[in-house]
Amino acid sequence: MKKADFGLPFFVDICGMERTELSDLGEFGLIDRIKSKTQIYQNTTITGIGDDAAVIDSGDYYTLVSTDMLLEGVHFDLSYVPLKHLGYKAVASNVSDIAAMNGLPKQITVNIGLSNRFSLEAIDELYEGIYAACENYQVDLVGGDTSTSRSGLVLSVTAIGEVPKGLITYRKGAQPNDILCVTGDLGAAYMGLMLLEREKQEFLANQEMQPKLEGFDYVVGKQLKPEGRTDVIHELREKKIVPTSMIDISDGLASEILHLSQNSGLGFSVFMENIPIENQTLNATNDFNISPVVAVLNGGEDYELLMTFSQADFEIIKSISEISPIGFVTADKNNILVLNSGEKVPITAQGWQHLKD
Amino acid sequence: MKKADFGLPFFVDICGMERTELSDLGEFGLIDRIKSKTQIYQNTTITGIGDDAAVIDSGDYYTLVSTDMLLEGVHFDLSYVPLKHLGYKAVASNVSDIAAMNGLPKQITVNIGLSNRFSLEAIDELYEGIYAACENYQVDLVGGDTSTSRSGLVLSVTAIGEVPKGLITYRKGAQPNDILCVTGDLGAAYMGLMLLEREKQEFLANQEMQPKLEGFDYVVGKQLKPEGRTDVIHELREKKIVPTSMIDISDGLASEILHLSQNSGLGFSVFMENIPIENQTLNATNDFNISPVVAVLNGGEDYELLMTFSQADFEIIKSISEISPIGFVTADKNNILVLNSGEKVPITAQGWQHLKD
Repeated sequence: MKKADFGLPFFVDICGMERTELSDLGEFGLIDRIKSKTQIYQNTTITGIGDDAAVIDSGDYYTLVSTDMLLEGVHFDLSYVPLKHLGYKAVASNVSDIAAMNGLPKQITVNIGLSNRFSLEAIDELYEGIYAACENYQVDLVGGDTSTSRSGLVLSVTAIGEVPKGLITYRKGAQPNDILCVTGDLGAAYMGLMLLEREKQEFLANQEMQPKLEGFDYVVGKQLKPEGRTDVIHELREKKIVPTSMIDISDGLASEILHLSQNSGLGFSVFMENIPIENQTLNATNDFNISPVVAVLNGGEDYELLMTFSQADFEIIKSISEISPIGFVTADKNNILVLNSGEKVPITAQGWQHLKD
Repeated sequence: MKKADFGLPFFVDICGMERTELSDLGEFGLIDRIKSKTQIYQNTTITGIGDDAAVIDSGDYYTLVSTDMLLEGVHFDLSYVPLKHLGYKAVASNVSDIAAMNGLPKQITVNIGLSNRFSLEAIDELYEGIYAACENYQVDLVGGDTSTSRSGLVLSVTAIGEVPKGLITYRKGAQPNDILCVTGDLGAAYMGLMLLEREKQEFLANQEMQPKLEGFDYVVGKQLKPEGRTDVIHELREKKIVPTSMIDISDGLASEILHLSQNSGLGFSVFMENIPIENQTLNATNDFNISPVVAVLNGGEDYELLMTFSQADFEIIKSISEISPIGFVTADKNNILVLNSGEKVPITAQGWQHLKD
């Protein structure tokens, strides 16, 4: 690599440079570009960019590192997201990334950017959520940076986890005929977001209005306070089975299926009728007159785990109530959703959502 | 600890809550408050909040974790900070925190928030700086998160490092009569910032003007592209000496002296005449008609190391050109700067600067 030239330019007009729009590249294109130029110098670095967490050799086990940033106005709207829930979610979403490597989280750091709009009481609320998540996942808050922000709340969380070397699970690794499974249920967090956004608009139009969220506590809760599925990781260890590949569902099922497909070089057939969807989620899709397929495939923020298992583990999988088989792995590279009608539709790229929204 | 109550409130008026201003507490007060409520669940967590990096037991060695956030308009001004330098500095400042524990950095993650103001070419510049720092410090970029930002560039970097257990150095640990030392020179980065800010104002007043930075390449370079002093860490290891305490100088010498004092329960006497200051720094203080004492004590962003050594190591310290003895540790808790005139002035709290600026 050519050594970078550090002159002392002044008043660089970044708008005047030759420009290619980031949107031409896309989020995943940008990540691939960053990854392709990255050099590895340390032999302890096992896996860098490109999985749910980085993998570092720590002798007897692997250390896992995952990090996420949450920006006000992009990732959350404080008019309906309580700060306590936000703090909890910021931890849980990183816990989910560690779980997706078949690991357990141990420590977190939290960087926070604050404007003077936030009082000490507001920050206490945020940290109450962070502490509650730390207690639930037995994770230690070990550091962070506090800073002024000129523009709303900024949260950046890094989680450090561990996994025994024999249990590490990557996005790659699926084999033909493996069983595709998912934890919990899908689509709820997205419908929770739709409901909260709808009620916000109603409230802005008429501030006397009370939000109509009765009967939707589960979907709203799933949006505001999701859980990382460390419970499932513990159960897999007790039952002594290891997935052949795994990813967490943060950008919708379609996006994650395509990641598993790209990393394994194989295809996935998914059966809509097997995908677990809560009644509240279905009720909400009815209310909005959208197909549950959309909520499941493109919704995102479920923070459930998508994983593949060898057929040999099928009997054990059936004994785990939180895991549902939803499809299988095929030797060709076609990714297909089989609708309840029997119709087969290709699973196509979504992604970009975080950057576009 | 009482379990957090997660209801589903709606349209929380955070401005309507009882409010205590964050400025009443101060940055260090806020950090102390967060730390005091933190529980530790993992026996691998050796040190959490309150030092330059968190310390995690990894069996044969300690893992170190440090994290920092840089926000546009708070920590940097893109009208005169080139993106390449910014990327380099974001890595170097975290490397400095790892060095301050007597450790060496191994991996980093970089979270980045971008608005559509930034082109791909601009992002490439930023990452060229990040890659250059990675090469210089032999650090692997292993992960990160890319996101839209509604409000300027956001950078959040986490560094993972290692230190042999016998070499770990904390902010605590100084003993009476230990020698206080500093690496490199102080005050340059602050004067570089003053110069860049002055030239920016001149430029805004008259855009025909060329910036007058001749003769100030060192101080401007120290502001725009500081280095973490891993070179000194390597030299300490070669010479087989371990500081009794250490901190990096990011908020000015006064603030760091007070940290060492608070953590050891001892006092520090510092001699202004022994503090290394570059001629360019002195020239700049002349230009601005300010005392070099101000640049050194309150300036910040030097990213040099402040450390204490046992008297027994004095001969070895003298052989290391990058380390200068500047004072000694006293059994009382008074922190005093002895001016060149012989006058003694108390060293008082600064801090808060990052949040106030």
